[in-house]
Amino acid sequence: MAAETRQLAAWASRLSYADLPRTTVEATKRLFADWVFCAHAGASYRVISAMEAMASDVGGDARGPASTFSGPPRAPYWAAYLNAGAGHVVEQDDLHNASVVHPATVVFPAAWAVAQAKGKSAREFIAASVVGYEVACRAGILLGREHYRVWHVTSTAGTLGAAAAAGRLLGLDTDGILNALGSAGTQTAGLWEFLATAADSKQVHCAHAAGTGVQSAFLALHGVTGSHNILLGKQGMFAGMVPGVDLASADATRLLPVPGKFQIDDSSFKFHASCRHTHPSADGLLAIMTKNNLTADDIASVDCHVHQEALNVLGPAEAATSVHQSKFSMGFVLGVLANGRSAQLADFTDARLSDPAVRAFQKKVHMHLDKGVDAAFPAKWTARVVVTTTDGRVLEEDVQTPKGDPGNSLSDAEFLGKWQRLIDYADRNASVDVKALAKELLALEEREDMNGLL
Amino acid sequence: MAAETRQLAAWASRLSYADLPRTTVEATKRLFADWVFCAHAGASYRVISAMEAMASDVGGDARGPASTFSGPPRAPYWAAYLNAGAGHVVEQDDLHNASVVHPATVVFPAAWAVAQAKGKSAREFIAASVVGYEVACRAGILLGREHYRVWHVTSTAGTLGAAAAAGRLLGLDTDGILNALGSAGTQTAGLWEFLATAADSKQVHCAHAAGTGVQSAFLALHGVTGSHNILLGKQGMFAGMVPGVDLASADATRLLPVPGKFQIDDSSFKFHASCRHTHPSADGLLAIMTKNNLTADDIASVDCHVHQEALNVLGPAEAATSVHQSKFSMGFVLGVLANGRSAQLADFTDARLSDPAVRAFQKKVHMHLDKGVDAAFPAKWTARVVVTTTDGRVLEEDVQTPKGDPGNSLSDAEFLGKWQRLIDYADRNASVDVKALAKELLALEEREDMNGLL
Repeated sequence: MAAETRQLAAWASRLSYADLPRTTVEATKRLFADWVFCAHAGASYRVISAMEAMASDVGGDARGPASTFSGPPRAPYWAAYLNAGAGHVVEQDDLHNASVVHPATVVFPAAWAVAQAKGKSAREFIAASVVGYEVACRAGILLGREHYRVWHVTSTAGTLGAAAAAGRLLGLDTDGILNALGSAGTQTAGLWEFLATAADSKQVHCAHAAGTGVQSAFLALHGVTGSHNILLGKQGMFAGMVPGVDLASADATRLLPVPGKFQIDDSSFKFHASCRHTHPSADGLLAIMTKNNLTADDIASVDCHVHQEALNVLGPAEAATSVHQSKFSMGFVLGVLANGRSAQLADFTDARLSDPAVRAFQKKVHMHLDKGVDAAFPAKWTARVVVTTTDGRVLEEDVQTPKGDPGNSLSDAEFLGKWQRLIDYADRNASVDVKALAKELLALEEREDMNGLL
Repeated sequence: MAAETRQLAAWASRLSYADLPRTTVEATKRLFADWVFCAHAGASYRVISAMEAMASDVGGDARGPASTFSGPPRAPYWAAYLNAGAGHVVEQDDLHNASVVHPATVVFPAAWAVAQAKGKSAREFIAASVVGYEVACRAGILLGREHYRVWHVTSTAGTLGAAAAAGRLLGLDTDGILNALGSAGTQTAGLWEFLATAADSKQVHCAHAAGTGVQSAFLALHGVTGSHNILLGKQGMFAGMVPGVDLASADATRLLPVPGKFQIDDSSFKFHASCRHTHPSADGLLAIMTKNNLTADDIASVDCHVHQEALNVLGPAEAATSVHQSKFSMGFVLGVLANGRSAQLADFTDARLSDPAVRAFQKKVHMHLDKGVDAAFPAKWTARVVVTTTDGRVLEEDVQTPKGDPGNSLSDAEFLGKWQRLIDYADRNASVDVKALAKELLALEEREDMNGLL
């Protein structure tokens, strides 16, 4: 089964900007722009400041050519590491449905840092990012739902994507990309166990993935070999990291690129500021409340019929003792949404954790595994939401394409609104002109280099 | 099952030099000395030079207080990373039988780098190293044989040991050590798949483990939380990284320190310069040849009755197309030993790969799974070796305690001989006075700091 990985690596080593349809270039720029604003918003979070301090303690001076959101420009490993954490912490970055990977925050920081270190153009950066998305998403699709049960696939598959993007910018050939993937895959990690106590590992995972991807590509550049079959070898990722599933059942064809079609086209933007697993239900509740002109007090109960992973990921967060954890509680998120019809960044605060209206609504929300919803997942993220009103009405909404999906994307005005809220939230509105930066980022392909964006 | 991990962390946060029996101090110094000479020998290997080049490319200037064998003093992350690779590449570093972990090359580089960065004394370094060994080895014992089937436990459990050692030097309390272990465990990695093509990942694993351990301890110092039950939580290491074994069968008591007893006392020194899985059989063949005054030509066949892991690890290396891989081929190793009664570093060369006498002998060697040997493993590394001579004699040797085990250690003269060979092999004999350095290292506890050892 090494042949499919080799085909993917060969494709990755050759893809160039000229191969990309206009729509793919536009999607890539918009995803990068969205991620830049997310990283601005996350850069001064406690956990990112702690990562900065750690990097200074153990990495030496390490100033360098690569921009960071959280501090001075750094050498590429540290820039990739820090920016990946910053881009994920506010939970507003993109999600690729079929793989359940958040690709932006592992692929872009790696590609950006290497592009700056090597003086590459924005077009080379764009092509490398498309490569990184393709590899991360295809690896995630291959590893599948049983992998995701224990492993944070953004981190595990993401390390491969980061390595591929970095490797493309270094001009690695097929064997070089394979070596980079081998080193990346054998260092890939990220367990969900931190969810049980809402520990800080989610950002550490992304940082580790992007940083390790950069290291792996440079190791390959300097001749360090890795397994050429790291995903599907007898002692590789699938064999070791997909509990309870036999290697023989792996579908290697999932790794094969399809001419003219790119995984990056399928990534979804986040609208609500909560875990993506809450979004289909949030959309359903919002639709029911809007159509029927309901207030939170009109609602007796909300039954969310969801896929299994929603139960797995959101279940442990129900207590919601921190702002970050509260975005992973279905009850809390719907409580926020019901009391104000908005679940944006500024709606999740320390004060909100003890808001009696939200906490009261939370008790009305129940999740149920739904066979149809579950069968459609992860290719489609759907939900069936049933609201029972205090006056006895039963109202139902079937959400097939949640807000932010490629088929139901944000409008230009909604993007600008989201990005402005991200900047306002981080209290960076004095230093970041959202409209001007958005304009620059959406004309990215004209840039000779990737410097001076922050 | 989080209680046992907490007990281990509490113990780790408190252990000090004064708690250590004299024998444990002596064992620690000897293990460190042995590792220092291994790292000298490995420092100029191709893969370590490539790691140096990668570090310079992605880490910035990164000079710092921590000694490296392969280049200038570095910031602690990079020193730990590089020294861990250097210490393992010649495959002469120690092995802890019951866990199948090579602890020296993940624990010492992390502890040494942090001790230098923080100006700690040699006694603090020694206590931290004992902590690192305890955590790495107990984690390895807990994860067990089914983990080792796919995962390089030196790297996976070793990351925890490196984090604990670094955390002890930073003065982390129980919660701090738990946070460090949580961050370390959720970034831990290392798949055996690289063995199939003898790729360079083994050194990358050790480097990753030591470096990530250092990062994790500093993250904890700066307040980054991690799972406090990373080994035994429902989505933790055991659940995710022990294929085919139910979490409920994990024996958490394996994590509990035993008063007055230290895992570091049980680590074995390597005598032969090959994979430790070959050593019991190598000792058996050597004993038979010596007792019966046989030459290689007198031998018609060698049947090695071994544990399952020997078949798993050594099997893929039988072709032996590189010097490093040749040390993982039972047939090749015994072929080298039979033709010269020595399997030391200088006996494995590029020229030797095409030595017809070795290649001819290799064909006479066969491995067989032995129930008794397998049942004793990994607590005991034994072998039953049967030699059939060309004149029809059947000679058998039952090896219960291979050379280098605590019960069959090297003499002072044998240590000096091994260390001199390591230095000669690396062509460092002009710059390293083995006797003088050995004397310094074996009086380590008198040092005020850990500087100036190279």
